[in-house]
Amino acid sequence: MRRSAVLRRVIFTGTLFFCWVVFFGSQSFSQHEKLRVNANRIKQRIMELAEFGKTQQGGVSRVAFSEANIQGRNYIVSLMKEAGLKIQIDEAGNIIGQRKGKEPKLPPILFGSHIDSVPNGGKYDGALGVIGAIECVQVLDENGIVTRHPLEVVVFTDEEGGLVGSRAMIGELTPEALEVVSHSGKKVRDGISAVGGNPDEISLVMRHKGEIKAFIEIHIEQGSVLETKNIDIGIVEGIVGINWWDVLIEGFSNHAGTTPMDMRHDALLAAAHLIIAVNRVATGVPGRQVGTVGRIQCEPGAPNVIPGRVVMSLELRDLSAKKINTLYEKIQKEAKAIAEKTKTKISFTPIDATAVPAPTDPQISKFIAEAAQELGLTSILMPSGAGHDAQNIARIAPTGMIFVPSVGGISHSPKEYTRPEDMANGANVLLFTILKIDQ
Amino acid sequence: MRRSAVLRRVIFTGTLFFCWVVFFGSQSFSQHEKLRVNANRIKQRIMELAEFGKTQQGGVSRVAFSEANIQGRNYIVSLMKEAGLKIQIDEAGNIIGQRKGKEPKLPPILFGSHIDSVPNGGKYDGALGVIGAIECVQVLDENGIVTRHPLEVVVFTDEEGGLVGSRAMIGELTPEALEVVSHSGKKVRDGISAVGGNPDEISLVMRHKGEIKAFIEIHIEQGSVLETKNIDIGIVEGIVGINWWDVLIEGFSNHAGTTPMDMRHDALLAAAHLIIAVNRVATGVPGRQVGTVGRIQCEPGAPNVIPGRVVMSLELRDLSAKKINTLYEKIQKEAKAIAEKTKTKISFTPIDATAVPAPTDPQISKFIAEAAQELGLTSILMPSGAGHDAQNIARIAPTGMIFVPSVGGISHSPKEYTRPEDMANGANVLLFTILKIDQ
Repeated sequence: MRRSAVLRRVIFTGTLFFCWVVFFGSQSFSQHEKLRVNANRIKQRIMELAEFGKTQQGGVSRVAFSEANIQGRNYIVSLMKEAGLKIQIDEAGNIIGQRKGKEPKLPPILFGSHIDSVPNGGKYDGALGVIGAIECVQVLDENGIVTRHPLEVVVFTDEEGGLVGSRAMIGELTPEALEVVSHSGKKVRDGISAVGGNPDEISLVMRHKGEIKAFIEIHIEQGSVLETKNIDIGIVEGIVGINWWDVLIEGFSNHAGTTPMDMRHDALLAAAHLIIAVNRVATGVPGRQVGTVGRIQCEPGAPNVIPGRVVMSLELRDLSAKKINTLYEKIQKEAKAIAEKTKTKISFTPIDATAVPAPTDPQISKFIAEAAQELGLTSILMPSGAGHDAQNIARIAPTGMIFVPSVGGISHSPKEYTRPEDMANGANVLLFTILKIDQ
Repeated sequence: MRRSAVLRRVIFTGTLFFCWVVFFGSQSFSQHEKLRVNANRIKQRIMELAEFGKTQQGGVSRVAFSEANIQGRNYIVSLMKEAGLKIQIDEAGNIIGQRKGKEPKLPPILFGSHIDSVPNGGKYDGALGVIGAIECVQVLDENGIVTRHPLEVVVFTDEEGGLVGSRAMIGELTPEALEVVSHSGKKVRDGISAVGGNPDEISLVMRHKGEIKAFIEIHIEQGSVLETKNIDIGIVEGIVGINWWDVLIEGFSNHAGTTPMDMRHDALLAAAHLIIAVNRVATGVPGRQVGTVGRIQCEPGAPNVIPGRVVMSLELRDLSAKKINTLYEKIQKEAKAIAEKTKTKISFTPIDATAVPAPTDPQISKFIAEAAQELGLTSILMPSGAGHDAQNIARIAPTGMIFVPSVGGISHSPKEYTRPEDMANGANVLLFTILKIDQ
């Protein structure tokens, strides 16, 4: 063969290779542009899962560690196997469905949610995040797509009982938390054993920074912002911090008939002023912070007795811990003035139910926004006002959350409903986001 | 005997008679100016009575028809006998101690109160009115004074359980009221039998207009007006009317984390505005009306859930039924505006615990004022914000009430206290008032 012929062949082969590289290199893009989850399959599986713990009201009671929860977990494991995932139950009872990547040394991309419910809850909270995650893997499987990173579909243990599984994964599930009695009646420790975990080796579950490429969770919004604004996708900027206080208002209980208006120390009147002050403070600055008084007890509590003592709750939520603190300081200042005006004493006791704000990863949020756009969906940035496993994982790995509309903003209720097309939208966005992270 | 001598004797005798008439006719006045009750005896008897149903907290639990109540009644009967009264237990179980007057055909002057207490109550509420009344009779007895009118010391049955004895006396104790279970655990019917009444012949107790010359009751104020203003005697203008309502506020319960402030229908926030409105309306016009929200229940009642439903009480009291109505109309108007502003629904349901205002008799109040003045005591006109047997008797007879200071305004409590000198002041005013009415 002449040198020129060899050169031509080399050039030809090189050109072919170049074309192959150009074609197949971009193929992942063109493939992913056409990829779509199966909306019917998602809907059908949501309904099948809802059979476990089904209630007469049309919802589900599938509290963690209950018989219904265990049956539901078995159902999910069967779906994972169908999608080609390798099943592992970790020491915290989290179900991990693993899929190999082309580059086994890369850290895995995690996605998922939970399938335990609150007592008398709905079909979608948590369930969508799990069914949607399995759907993504199944679509990749059906299309013969192997990602660079390993993938892990996670079903976290006992989310509704205090984010148990995800707390274990960040190494913050305390020995005390294991002794708490869960909704099922079982201690968390015994529940974890019942689902195949090992409460005595919980620390093995812990993952460290850098060990997870990313975590993404789809979830129903549980509010009515998306529905009201007619938006398809909520890109969660972060999970809000939550602070709780018990507010004690001490007045003086007295005969309502014999105590003139100007001689009263009416604790309920003071409480009323404070409830309005909380609302005024929470709405008085720009932002999406919320302030709530949801519980109130008034003593002695008779129509003909001036209330002498009121105990009520105060809850503040925002993405910024600093803002929560500023709001709290304003409320305290208002309380001082109210106490003086009403001749009562007002004191605040923090309740240990605090969650620190958990910002999501801006790069992942950008991927979610691009994915939505490519899918022709509208999206907005929004906080998650509710707690999620994502808030824990956000502390060790770049995390993103995808919200889809809740009809009527209702959740934790048998009336919880999300339309099949919205569930599919969420899963498609998740699929695109995984592929974007993977590249 | 010469005619002139006869004439002189007649003139002399006539002059003597005139002098006698002038002397003894005015003697009732001079006597009554010097008459005083025995302050020590009142104090001692209050303490002796307080032995029946004595509590560890230093108060009394002597609820109507209880064993302690029956023993207390027996003690009172013994005191009445010592004061020369003739005892009768009427069909409603009221103890009536009768004393003849010079003119038996005149209607009797009644005075007294009750000796049953609330559970865990104090030593003075009711007791002072009874012990003070007996003291007046005993002082008359000790001073050989016989009034023109017959006198009757009355101990009404089960005042704290709904003014049972006085309701019977005005013919308004219904058959249903007899079936109510009293604080003692006994039905009122059985209680009345237990104290010597006859529930099947209750109608015999009824007295008609004109059959009672007057009724006067001493009572501790149960408020702090007299103490605060440093006044000895309260002259009760009337017992206030009382109206009760249940107020239902319907919002929409929702997740406090996921529902923005401007999308809420917060029933407790609406309630807070209404509690303040009640206070504003009650204090917004001159007068001594009072408005109270003493009971509140909020559902579902969790710190992280926006309240969807509040039920609270509303109580209005005033001497004028018309004014109560005007205040209620104002509150309703405010409620309408609040409901609109907070996107809630507010409705009022009257509770059948209504007492109509019962004005006392102006002439008797004038006598009480004169009596106080003659005794060197300060006095003011004031409403009774609490209910009393006097409010029933006021409907069939001219009625007066004498208040003495309650230390700290406290009543229905073991801490209830009235100083011995104040108790004696009240009894002296009662004594003078009886004599004034009698003339």
